[in-house]
Amino acid sequence: MVRRLSIPTRGQGLHEITSEVASVVEAADLDQGLCTVFIQHTSASLVIQENADPSARTDLENWLNRLVKEGDPLYTHNDEGPDDMPSHIKAALTATTLAIPIVDGRLALGRWQVIYVWEHRRRGSDRNIVVHAA
Amino acid sequence: MVRRLSIPTRGQGLHEITSEVASVVEAADLDQGLCTVFIQHTSASLVIQENADPSARTDLENWLNRLVKEGDPLYTHNDEGPDDMPSHIKAALTATTLAIPIVDGRLALGRWQVIYVWEHRRRGSDRNIVVHAA
Amino acid sequence: MVRRLSIPTRGQGLHEITSEVASVVEAADLDQGLCTVFIQHTSASLVIQENADPSARTDLENWLNRLVKEGDPLYTHNDEGPDDMPSHIKAALTATTLAIPIVDGRLALGRWQVIYVWEHRRRGSDRNIVVHAA
Repeated sequence: MVRRLSIPTRGQGLHEITSEVASVVEAADLDQGLCTVFIQHTSASLVIQENADPSARTDLENWLNRLVKEGDPLYTHNDEGPDDMPSHIKAALTATTLAIPIVDGRLALGRWQVIYVWEHRRRGSDRNIVVHAA
Repeated sequence: MVRRLSIPTRGQGLHEITSEVASVVEAADLDQGLCTVFIQHTSASLVIQENADPSARTDLENWLNRLVKEGDPLYTHNDEGPDDMPSHIKAALTATTLAIPIVDGRLALGRWQVIYVWEHRRRGSDRNIVVHAA
Repeated sequence: MVRRLSIPTRGQGLHEITSEVASVVEAADLDQGLCTVFIQHTSASLVIQENADPSARTDLENWLNRLVKEGDPLYTHNDEGPDDMPSHIKAALTATTLAIPIVDGRLALGRWQVIYVWEHRRRGSDRNIVVHAA
C-alpha cells in the first residue's frame, strides 16, 4: 500500500510525523512487514531521533546550522536565497528515505524513537512524503 | 526482481543514474512497489539531489571536500593514496542504500529529484550497483 | 520474516554484525529479496564499511569524534553526560536503517563491505536491532 502525506512545516527544524506514518501502517493491516518513508524534496529530509527532551532537538538543529553555514563564500548556488545551498547540503548529510520494520502490526520503533521531517528552509512549506507499507 | 548495474565514474563527483534505475523499475512491471538501490562499495555512495542547476552539485562536492580534507594528519590509513580515507568518511556520511516507492509503475521521485552515484575517489572506476524492485 | 538481535557493545566504535544479519537471511531461505536492518536507538547507528584494515575503522571513529566534540558549549542537553548530545548528532549523520538486496540466497554485499553497529556512547550497552527479510 502507498499513501501520500502532505506535511506543513513552519520554518526550520524537526517536525514530528510519527502518528501520520503509524496511521498508514494501521490502514495497511499487516502483522509483519516493512514501512518505507520517502521525502520528495532536496531541501528537507527525514531523521529518526528521540523526542523525550526538546533540548536534544534544539541542539541537533543548532549544531547542524553551525556546521553548514549560511553565507559561506564557497557557495555559487544562491538563486533562492542564503538558506538554499545549506538546505541541499543538510539534506545530503541526513536521510531522504527510511525503512522501518512492522512487527505485531506496528512500527518497530525503539522506546524513544520518533520520525521527523527535518525542514532546512527558513520559511518551510508543504512537504510531500510517500509512505509504502508491504 | 534484482538487476546489477555497472556505472563507470570518471573522477570525483555526482554521476546521475536515474534512467538506469528507472529502466529496472520499468522491466519489473509493477503498479505499486518499492525500489531499493544499493552500492557495493565503501569509497563511493548514493545521494538523491536536484539536477536543475549544476552549481548546486558543484557546491555540494566542494563543501564535502572541504569538510573531509585530504592529507589530514589524523589519518593513519593511507595505503591507497591521499583520497582513500576521505572516501570512506564521505561514504559513511552519505548513503549506501536508498529505497524509493514505486507508484503508477514509476519511481515516486519528487519533481527535482534525481539519483546519483557519488564517486569519492579521484580516479573513479566501474561501480557496482544492485537494484531490487518488488 | 522478522528477527530481533541484541548486540552487546563495549564502548564507542564499530561492532561488526554481518554474521548475525546473514544468519537471519539464511533462516529466511529466500533466493531473492530484501534485508532491512533497523537499530532501535538514537545514540547508536548503523554503517556499512570495509573491514580489510582496522586503521580505516579507527580513522573513521577519530574523525567523527573530532567533528562532533564532547563539551561543546553549544549543547544544552547534557543530562546523561558529555557523550549524550554528541551521540545523537552522530546518529543523525549516519544511518538508523539499511536495506541490502538478497541475491542467490545471500546478502549482496560488496567484496569489502561489512555491517557495523556504530556505538556512540562511551559505555556501550545491549543494542536492539530488528532484521526484516522478505
